[in-house]
Amino acid sequence: MPFASRLLCLLDRVSAPSTVHAHCDIPCGVYDPEQARIEAESAYKIIEKYQASDDELFRQRCVIVKEERTELAKHHISVLWSDHFKPEHLEQFPNLHDVFWRALKQCSAVKRSVDSQEAQKLLDLIDEIDAMWQKTGGLETTRKNGRPSA
Amino acid sequence: MPFASRLLCLLDRVSAPSTVHAHCDIPCGVYDPEQARIEAESAYKIIEKYQASDDELFRQRCVIVKEERTELAKHHISVLWSDHFKPEHLEQFPNLHDVFWRALKQCSAVKRSVDSQEAQKLLDLIDEIDAMWQKTGGLETTRKNGRPSA
Amino acid sequence: MPFASRLLCLLDRVSAPSTVHAHCDIPCGVYDPEQARIEAESAYKIIEKYQASDDELFRQRCVIVKEERTELAKHHISVLWSDHFKPEHLEQFPNLHDVFWRALKQCSAVKRSVDSQEAQKLLDLIDEIDAMWQKTGGLETTRKNGRPSA
Amino acid sequence: MPFASRLLCLLDRVSAPSTVHAHCDIPCGVYDPEQARIEAESAYKIIEKYQASDDELFRQRCVIVKEERTELAKHHISVLWSDHFKPEHLEQFPNLHDVFWRALKQCSAVKRSVDSQEAQKLLDLIDEIDAMWQKTGGLETTRKNGRPSA
Amino acid sequence: MPFASRLLCLLDRVSAPSTVHAHCDIPCGVYDPEQARIEAESAYKIIEKYQASDDELFRQRCVIVKEERTELAKHHISVLWSDHFKPEHLEQFPNLHDVFWRALKQCSAVKRSVDSQEAQKLLDLIDEIDAMWQKTGGLETTRKNGRPSA
Amino acid sequence: MPFASRLLCLLDRVSAPSTVHAHCDIPCGVYDPEQARIEAESAYKIIEKYQASDDELFRQRCVIVKEERTELAKHHISVLWSDHFKPEHLEQFPNLHDVFWRALKQCSAVKRSVDSQEAQKLLDLIDEIDAMWQKTGGLETTRKNGRPSA
Repeated sequence: MPFASRLLCLLDRVSAPSTVHAHCDIPCGVYDPEQARIEAESAYKIIEKYQASDDELFRQRCVIVKEERTELAKHHISVLWSDHFKPEHLEQFPNLHDVFWRALKQCSAVKRSVDSQEAQKLLDLIDEIDAMWQKTGGLETTRKNGRPSA
Repeated sequence: MPFASRLLCLLDRVSAPSTVHAHCDIPCGVYDPEQARIEAESAYKIIEKYQASDDELFRQRCVIVKEERTELAKHHISVLWSDHFKPEHLEQFPNLHDVFWRALKQCSAVKRSVDSQEAQKLLDLIDEIDAMWQKTGGLETTRKNGRPSA
Repeated sequence: MPFASRLLCLLDRVSAPSTVHAHCDIPCGVYDPEQARIEAESAYKIIEKYQASDDELFRQRCVIVKEERTELAKHHISVLWSDHFKPEHLEQFPNLHDVFWRALKQCSAVKRSVDSQEAQKLLDLIDEIDAMWQKTGGLETTRKNGRPSA
Repeated sequence: MPFASRLLCLLDRVSAPSTVHAHCDIPCGVYDPEQARIEAESAYKIIEKYQASDDELFRQRCVIVKEERTELAKHHISVLWSDHFKPEHLEQFPNLHDVFWRALKQCSAVKRSVDSQEAQKLLDLIDEIDAMWQKTGGLETTRKNGRPSA
Repeated sequence: MPFASRLLCLLDRVSAPSTVHAHCDIPCGVYDPEQARIEAESAYKIIEKYQASDDELFRQRCVIVKEERTELAKHHISVLWSDHFKPEHLEQFPNLHDVFWRALKQCSAVKRSVDSQEAQKLLDLIDEIDAMWQKTGGLETTRKNGRPSA
Repeated sequence: MPFASRLLCLLDRVSAPSTVHAHCDIPCGVYDPEQARIEAESAYKIIEKYQASDDELFRQRCVIVKEERTELAKHHISVLWSDHFKPEHLEQFPNLHDVFWRALKQCSAVKRSVDSQEAQKLLDLIDEIDAMWQKTGGLETTRKNGRPSA
């Protein structure tokens, strides 16, 4: 983890109570686009493996599991939109609704497809969401201790 | 994202097929302790808010949601143990089973408790799991593009 | 069922293939705000009963079940937004995103509250969604036979 | 909405408290065969689309999603039988158990089949359930405000 | 395991193919009232512990978990009714529908109550279901190898 | 039920509070490998039927349902490991972790395969777990009344 992030984490720990309450009014306050990204990455790799295989059973299972993973990505994206982002963020990100709408529709596209470019588009949209989330101070509200160095 | 990680990602993309297959034999290969940590952080903050409140309704909701979040942490930890780690890792981490067993039992402890120290113990155990996961090359198998800079 | 609706249903059946495909490109095409409304009505009545009771056990169960029902309403609303409504509808309903955002946020408000006015606000927002859905031809895509007369 | 229904809705609003409590003893009282019908209609349209397509991937997804939708129909039908209908209704509808049993078994038939006639049989059985539900005053216990005119 | 059961198991193994196919036409054929009973026993013990405790947090968690366990019992009972039992069994057990209806309604009663007598009534009804299930040859279709001696 | 078991059950009922509390510290205490075995038997029979059929639709549904059933087996096995077994049992069963790890990995193998030998291996591992569970007094903590004689 780079120095700047460590510093943010340290500051986070010192000033946690007030910062956290500023970002959430429901019993959690922990939102992280990683949840959506991990499911979307899973869909991406499942498509890669589907394309690399000619085992009929394996390919059927890929379609089943991709459906589930993408549904989870959809759920996590929807929660970020409705729960993390607040009306004041809309001024900061005038295309907020549009990015989220396209991201959710892209999840449907990934369900329908076995083209890894569709999964890549979803990952790109989640990256756009992540960038907005970071600008609202998202990183400070999660990763209490930062990922440990191995 | 620091340079070293970028390099790893680049290498990952170049050599994806063989690398990925070395780490997974089921249709996904994407495992990340972040999934468990996000749920455990959620439980941690719920407990903090529970302790800071004297609203009976709010506290009841904290107990309900903490139960769900901790159950999800438990699920993600179990999947890491059974699906990501392989017999060869057991030689590398002789205490592998013990750490995972204690982490799962700590999830139960967090369900039963409203003491933030119990949630912190769970976060610490997930950090131990994360360190082992990183040593098995976990970071290279996820975060295809790395988290974008805001 | 009134005559006009029967006629629409008949037309629907005759021209089903093209009409249906015009409204959906995923394997279903059946969307209906009733799904969200039934869950929201359930939340409304649970709150009424919570307020009318002083049985501690009963009230705890109300909080638990309201949490579940409202989560389901949230899910159904999110699906309508991302799956039923298409870019062309945005011109027709410039406040489309705003209504859905407020409806999802109102679900969170209902989770946090035992005030029936919060549940009524959610029902009103679902009615707004229903009106838009009807204007996009929603009624013709569901209720194949219409509700039978008792 | 026709005049008679509007009148019922109006009466419902005026006399809501006592009427509602007469129909339910658990924390909700809102039951509506629409929940089962929407899932069954979804299964019906999925089968139509399955038959109209020769895309192997699309057809596989149809089978997966039909399984889920029909399972939900089954759940909603079972809840209506066990929770909405009471022993006194059995005298009114001597074939109550038989209709529900056949409806649940028809859900299994729809899972096993890609014949739209099987889905139509399920819709017909849900219509029979709806008719009984209406005769027990079902319509008054839901649709608090009636579906809005678009 | 007593001798008679061992014998049945042995016979089961010898004649498995034909016997099994005689009892199921969907992709499983394995039904066992044990699934419902384990959840009902769980509800029974949760109520015992609720009554023995005066810890408010613990009691709240009992109510939450009892709700989940009883919902699972309800699901398993419903599946037995609709999937295992066939029209020909109705002649053998004229009260089949009534026993199942009462069992499902008793699940609702256990949700609403913290009286262990309500949970005992549910266990008794599941025993009645189990007896009917055994008479239809249920034991032969499950427990492929019989429970092992410790 | 044989005499010895009945006696154990009777003793269990007489001394329930202390006995039960010795085995569990969360709100349930009811664990039974039957839950995992029923799902694993289901997977076994699904594979048998898959092999016996050449109906493409039927075989696709087998793959879908087997995925679900095996996931449930995995869940039940994980719960037994983390919740029923305690550190003191580890001395009694030095291979405890290994058996559970192999059982969970075997669930993944059954998902990937349509070979009934893989399902049989899972059943054998569940039998090993059952034997350990019985030696920890598992039978006394469940089956309050014993399975009734038909």
